[in-house]
Amino acid sequence: MGQVAWKALFLSLFDYKTEKYVIAKNKKVGILYRAVQLSVLAYLVGWVFVVKKGYQDTDTSLQSSVITKLKGVAFTNTSELGERLWDVADYVIPPQGESVFFVVTNLIVTPNQRQATCPESDSIPDALCHEDEDCQEGAAVVAGNGVKTGRCLKDRDSIRGTCEILAWCPVEKRSKPKKPLLGSAENFTVYIKNSIRFPKFKFSKMNVLATDNESYLKTCRYSAEEHPYCPIFVLGNIVRWAGGDFQEMASGGGVIGIQIEWNCDLDKAPSECNPHYSFSRLDNKSAESSISSGYNFRFAKYYRDAEGVDYRTLIKAYGIRFDVMVNGKAGKFNIIPTIINISSGLALMGAGAFFCDLVLLYLIKKSNFYRGKKYEEVKSSSRKSLSSPTLNGNQSPEQLGGL
Amino acid sequence: MGQVAWKALFLSLFDYKTEKYVIAKNKKVGILYRAVQLSVLAYLVGWVFVVKKGYQDTDTSLQSSVITKLKGVAFTNTSELGERLWDVADYVIPPQGESVFFVVTNLIVTPNQRQATCPESDSIPDALCHEDEDCQEGAAVVAGNGVKTGRCLKDRDSIRGTCEILAWCPVEKRSKPKKPLLGSAENFTVYIKNSIRFPKFKFSKMNVLATDNESYLKTCRYSAEEHPYCPIFVLGNIVRWAGGDFQEMASGGGVIGIQIEWNCDLDKAPSECNPHYSFSRLDNKSAESSISSGYNFRFAKYYRDAEGVDYRTLIKAYGIRFDVMVNGKAGKFNIIPTIINISSGLALMGAGAFFCDLVLLYLIKKSNFYRGKKYEEVKSSSRKSLSSPTLNGNQSPEQLGGL
Amino acid sequence: MGQVAWKALFLSLFDYKTEKYVIAKNKKVGILYRAVQLSVLAYLVGWVFVVKKGYQDTDTSLQSSVITKLKGVAFTNTSELGERLWDVADYVIPPQGESVFFVVTNLIVTPNQRQATCPESDSIPDALCHEDEDCQEGAAVVAGNGVKTGRCLKDRDSIRGTCEILAWCPVEKRSKPKKPLLGSAENFTVYIKNSIRFPKFKFSKMNVLATDNESYLKTCRYSAEEHPYCPIFVLGNIVRWAGGDFQEMASGGGVIGIQIEWNCDLDKAPSECNPHYSFSRLDNKSAESSISSGYNFRFAKYYRDAEGVDYRTLIKAYGIRFDVMVNGKAGKFNIIPTIINISSGLALMGAGAFFCDLVLLYLIKKSNFYRGKKYEEVKSSSRKSLSSPTLNGNQSPEQLGGL
Repeated sequence: MGQVAWKALFLSLFDYKTEKYVIAKNKKVGILYRAVQLSVLAYLVGWVFVVKKGYQDTDTSLQSSVITKLKGVAFTNTSELGERLWDVADYVIPPQGESVFFVVTNLIVTPNQRQATCPESDSIPDALCHEDEDCQEGAAVVAGNGVKTGRCLKDRDSIRGTCEILAWCPVEKRSKPKKPLLGSAENFTVYIKNSIRFPKFKFSKMNVLATDNESYLKTCRYSAEEHPYCPIFVLGNIVRWAGGDFQEMASGGGVIGIQIEWNCDLDKAPSECNPHYSFSRLDNKSAESSISSGYNFRFAKYYRDAEGVDYRTLIKAYGIRFDVMVNGKAGKFNIIPTIINISSGLALMGAGAFFCDLVLLYLIKKSNFYRGKKYEEVKSSSRKSLSSPTLNGNQSPEQLGGL
Repeated sequence: MGQVAWKALFLSLFDYKTEKYVIAKNKKVGILYRAVQLSVLAYLVGWVFVVKKGYQDTDTSLQSSVITKLKGVAFTNTSELGERLWDVADYVIPPQGESVFFVVTNLIVTPNQRQATCPESDSIPDALCHEDEDCQEGAAVVAGNGVKTGRCLKDRDSIRGTCEILAWCPVEKRSKPKKPLLGSAENFTVYIKNSIRFPKFKFSKMNVLATDNESYLKTCRYSAEEHPYCPIFVLGNIVRWAGGDFQEMASGGGVIGIQIEWNCDLDKAPSECNPHYSFSRLDNKSAESSISSGYNFRFAKYYRDAEGVDYRTLIKAYGIRFDVMVNGKAGKFNIIPTIINISSGLALMGAGAFFCDLVLLYLIKKSNFYRGKKYEEVKSSSRKSLSSPTLNGNQSPEQLGGL
Repeated sequence: MGQVAWKALFLSLFDYKTEKYVIAKNKKVGILYRAVQLSVLAYLVGWVFVVKKGYQDTDTSLQSSVITKLKGVAFTNTSELGERLWDVADYVIPPQGESVFFVVTNLIVTPNQRQATCPESDSIPDALCHEDEDCQEGAAVVAGNGVKTGRCLKDRDSIRGTCEILAWCPVEKRSKPKKPLLGSAENFTVYIKNSIRFPKFKFSKMNVLATDNESYLKTCRYSAEEHPYCPIFVLGNIVRWAGGDFQEMASGGGVIGIQIEWNCDLDKAPSECNPHYSFSRLDNKSAESSISSGYNFRFAKYYRDAEGVDYRTLIKAYGIRFDVMVNGKAGKFNIIPTIINISSGLALMGAGAFFCDLVLLYLIKKSNFYRGKKYEEVKSSSRKSLSSPTLNGNQSPEQLGGL
């Protein structure tokens, strides 16, 4: 091509091409289209942008660190242990104040266990025996406490006994106090310090407000209405808010989830990003099956006597485990989701126009006429190409042509 | 403007404007366009909506609480410890049943350590010495057990010795039993209770099915094929499924990940949201470097003798740590992702139409003719504005004009 | 319809319909439109695809397992404890090497506590008394150590005393050493093994590089510049990088977050997916309120004397808690976000065209003329439908018609 042709090509680049429209003076379809446009606009502005904050990029993977500290003492007076005072070092396991902590509220203590032989507990089916052959030597008792020695121990005049086992003897008696030992744990308090960070937005915050004075933090108690940002919780309240009964849970144990939810709009001031606490019971009490509700575990304190022989106190601890679970969502304006959402709105309007086209071209009385106006048929015969545009409003069927 | 003009303006709002189309009776391009439309539709419906569930909003940040409980006893008979029975309180660390638990399977016990001076272990390079000057007083032995006192302890006739240190004496001997002490831990079982919550959808569930009867939960053992929802696992099976050898891992320690995956379609019934378990080894055994494979740690049991002097039993515990890791994804129908995905399909169709336009206007034989039909050139000279539309099918180059 | 009509309908399906365009030879609007197109393209390619990797599907919910192991010994010589050596089993709580570990650096030791009665500490406001009536029998001392017995203990000639309590006696003295006991913990090292998995992409990796030789892993020390992938950290460095002063933190305790960030582009080689470490202080020292800064907890070691009576050593441990927090983001090419982002770009171009239309039709001098060309008004009167297309460039107002 010559220089002129190239120049023409270059210039044609800056011609503005705009779609040619046909104005159909049909008020019904016109109103329908405006209604569609308004609906899309309302959805986009009202739902997507205002309610769902579609202009924000969100981060739901937050880093969290939880520090917990319990306070409170309890006094017990039982025949087994005598008068005893329980303080934090006695009833909190583990002591170091992590996000999962356990408060002992009931105990089965089996003191002075030593490695020896003794009869297995008669509440274990596998340990019941009639004669020595029922107790295979060296076999572990299923769900039991030791290894069978091969002897069947019977009371003088009974026909049923239990196998003798090698174990930490004597074995634990299977009965727990009905009334929880540390029922007064209801009044203990826990101080929960939670520091979070949204890595995507490099935003950090703590649940303990920096502006609060020290004495408030020492005396306040959390309640959703009055002190929603006080980080000190009364255990009894937590259990009640989770829908549990403290004394009942204290007796058989249980697990309580303390959910801390951070729902932060980082387009606003950081001071408006505050934690929201909620509480729920995590062991399914409703199922009423002893295997899946309640919470307990065994641990032992080891001692050594003057002869250097180890003995231990086995403790089956019932109590309430608290799991502090932190989750959150932060949102901040970002151009990409904004444009994606706007685009989806525009595409929706396009779809609306297509729908109105269908109405105009196939459903109304004079659709045949509009079809002819909208679609201009051209055939590449040399004769036609010289004529004026062919407009054929009453032509062959094009019912599916609009798709 | 007068009232009439305003009324006309208002009425014109409800005129329906629709794009004018040119029908090109070209079957090739027509079929191409239908093929593009079908592909987009197939991608959108088949891939985006059916396979990837693009109509759902997803939540991947779940709250999880894990309770674990081990069962099983083991009997050992060694020269060091004599006949001994190990129960849960002995071999589980920590005892309280959290998501990370450790089962002791091998031990190096160093009993009766007291604060004193003694020779450092000769397996530590920094403690080797020829004379007292090699042992700088007060310096800690690098990777060792104590602080040098300044003396070099040698056997009578040797030239090399080890520094005397102030430490818990005697120091640990560096040898672990080849055969794991608690090899029978292979038969121990662990009951894993996992309760999850998707905060975005306020959906909670447990891995222990509420409908199951209690005896099933007491006797079942998990296996992927037969009992995929039984929450009781045999340790030996877990290690085998993770690709490890239990006896070998029991000897040198290791870390096993128990992944619980919740992949929930909340548009379906809650009962179809079930956990999927998988197992993997987390310490890289393959690397064969002693520093990064295996798992062990030291802890001590503290005693006090009659004179009130502290002494301790140092235990280097080898064993298998199990990390229960829970993750999940919940999806639920949401209008916003649905519309975004449909919009992207519509936009794709628009792109397809643009591509077909290019074919029609530049690649086929009669493209020149179609170009003239599609583009109607107008010039804003007053003369032309009164004439009929200018159609110039054989005009200046517009190769790039369609972009 | 007859067979012929059906055939015509079927054939019309493969007619290609393309929008009719009006070429406005207006350079201003043409250049404006090209500029809009270029901006959208630059935003789409430059920002969305290159910078933000909009063609990738991302996973931010990773599974992580952390193993930690400390090394180091410290020697102390105090009047209370005498010469003493501290090793890992003494100062790490809990011992098993989880992601949260605590290093004891300062202590208040209260030895030989027994269940008895003794005066409450006089630093507790609730325990101060003038006469026995001030000490209600059986009431727990608020924020105190025991339960009041009802007696007020006074020195002979003073008027103020403290209530007698039933507690672990003697109670703890409220004073901690100014100088941290284990200040030399600054030189301890911690080896952090972190193995992660992105469940969506089934991609696993460890922070300990498999290719490194064993001796490197034994001798290297992490530093951001020189050894960014060495997994061994000096405690003193961690605290310094977190902006703290080790000796000051060792005295009053504190919490340090060790963030491990995995930012992986899985379209690249797995070897380019490496951890990035950062350190921050999590207890808000800045607030200067004693209740929310620092870190300490109490635990006890239990002993039993020859008579079988329990006594304990209460330890209030100050120290530094390290929270290893792992988060990450993996991205991998996925067709759905790619198409969504491209679509949003296309829709943006459509919006740009609409904007240019507004300029062309309403803002430039000859907009009236172009409006007539773009919009072809049709009326469904039978008379008009036979005439040639009605072009009315100078017609009734349509200012809002383009919307």
